[in-house]
Amino acid sequence: MSTHVTRRDFLAGSAASVALAACASAPKTPSVSTKPHGRAGVVLFQGDSITDASRSRAAAGPNTPAALGTGYPLLIASAVLRAQADRDWSFFNRGISGNRVPDLQARWAADTIALKPDVLSILIGVNDYWHMRRNTYAGTAADYEAGLAALLGGTREALPSVRLIIMEPFVLPIGSVDMTWFPAFDERRAIARRIADRTGATFVSLHDAIMAEATRTRADRWLGDGVHPTPAGHALIAERWRTAAAI
Amino acid sequence: MSTHVTRRDFLAGSAASVALAACASAPKTPSVSTKPHGRAGVVLFQGDSITDASRSRAAAGPNTPAALGTGYPLLIASAVLRAQADRDWSFFNRGISGNRVPDLQARWAADTIALKPDVLSILIGVNDYWHMRRNTYAGTAADYEAGLAALLGGTREALPSVRLIIMEPFVLPIGSVDMTWFPAFDERRAIARRIADRTGATFVSLHDAIMAEATRTRADRWLGDGVHPTPAGHALIAERWRTAAAI
Repeated sequence: MSTHVTRRDFLAGSAASVALAACASAPKTPSVSTKPHGRAGVVLFQGDSITDASRSRAAAGPNTPAALGTGYPLLIASAVLRAQADRDWSFFNRGISGNRVPDLQARWAADTIALKPDVLSILIGVNDYWHMRRNTYAGTAADYEAGLAALLGGTREALPSVRLIIMEPFVLPIGSVDMTWFPAFDERRAIARRIADRTGATFVSLHDAIMAEATRTRADRWLGDGVHPTPAGHALIAERWRTAAAI
Repeated sequence: MSTHVTRRDFLAGSAASVALAACASAPKTPSVSTKPHGRAGVVLFQGDSITDASRSRAAAGPNTPAALGTGYPLLIASAVLRAQADRDWSFFNRGISGNRVPDLQARWAADTIALKPDVLSILIGVNDYWHMRRNTYAGTAADYEAGLAALLGGTREALPSVRLIIMEPFVLPIGSVDMTWFPAFDERRAIARRIADRTGATFVSLHDAIMAEATRTRADRWLGDGVHPTPAGHALIAERWRTAAAI
C-alpha cells in the first residue's frame, strides 16, 4: 500500500478540479496532457514457466497486460509504470514454459537480441535440474554453468551496454519437489550466483526468502506445487526484483 | 516497494539456515510448515472488461493467477495474499467484457450469490453509457440507477452479511472517448456514489485520481483507449481499492 495517499488524494482533487473546469469552458479540447517524457528503456524478462505465467503469444507492443502474463513480470511492470509514469519504460515477457538453458540458447537471437533490451532479466534453472532427475534431459550442473556462461557471454558481445539481472532458481519441498532435491538443487543456485558475479550481473536472491516465508506460514501459499509461485509468491519475487534492481 | 527489506532479509537468512540445517539432519522430513491459519473470507470481483482483464474461463479454485486475469483483481489478490499470508483469503474474478447492469442481473444468481462472497466488489457503468451513445442499448441514467439499486437490494437479501464495495466508473477523453461524454458521464459516476451511500457500501473513488495522473503525465499511460486501464492504470486502481477497503 502506498504511503502517499493523503498527498495524492489532495493532488487528485485539485488537478481534477482544474481539468473539469477546463472541460466546461472548452468542451472539445482534451484537458489531459499528451507531452512526451524521458526515455527509461526496454526491460525484457526471459525464462521458463515461472516467467511465462500464461502470457498471451499474440503479437503485442510493450506493456500489454495479457502479453506480460499473470506473474512477477506483470507485477513489476505495473508497479514501475505506475510509480514512474513520466518515463518511457517498455516491458516485454518472452518466458516459455519448460525451458532450460539450451532452449534459451536456441531462440536467443530472435527472442532476446532482436528486442535490444536495455535491461535483461533471466530466471532459468529449475527445469535443467528437474528434467535431468526425470531422465528426460542429460544436462549436468557443469552443463548448466557452461551453458549459462556462454549465453551471457554472447549477450554481452551482441549488446555491450545491456544491464543483466540474474534471478536465483528456487523450490520448496512439497508437491512436485521433495527433500531428495537437496543439496543437489542448491548447487544450481550457487552456479547462478557465481555466473552473476562473474558477468557483473545484478543477482536477485530468492530461495532463502521464499523458504523463510514458507517456514513462517505454509509452503503452498508461496509455491503451490513446490515450483510454481502463487500470486503471493509472485508478489514476493517482484518485490525482491525491484529492490535488487533498484528500478 | 517494501520498506521492510532489511528486516526481511535478516529473517530470510536466519530462518533458511534453520530450515537447511533441518534438511541435513532429517532429509525426508519437509522443513516447511503445513499448519492451518485464520479465515479471512471470499472476495469476489464483478464487472465488465476492466475487471475481466483477459481472465481464463477454465474452471479454477480461488487465487488462481490466470483465472484472476491481468488487471486490478490480480494486483489486489497478489498484494493481499503476500501481505497477509497467514489468513485464508479466497479471491475470485467473474467480470465479463461488455457487461452492463442488466447483464450482471441476468447472471447474478449463478455468478455471484452462489459463490457466497464475504466481500463483493462491483465496477459497472461505462458500457451502460457507451452502448446507449452507440444506440445499441436503450438504458438511461435512471435505468442505471434503478438497476444498480435493485441488484444491490437483492444481494443484501440473499447475502445479509456481505460487505459491498462499489467502484466508481471512469474514462479519459482520448481514443474511444471524447469531451462530448461530459457532463453526461459524470451523472453515472454520481449515481454509483449515491447508490453506495444508500446501501452502506464502501465507495472507491477513481475518476478524479485517474484524471489527475493523466493531467500530470499523459492520458494514454493510464487508460490506453480512454476506457481500458494500462498496467499502470490497474496499479493505481488496485492501490485506491486497498486504501478504501482497508484490506
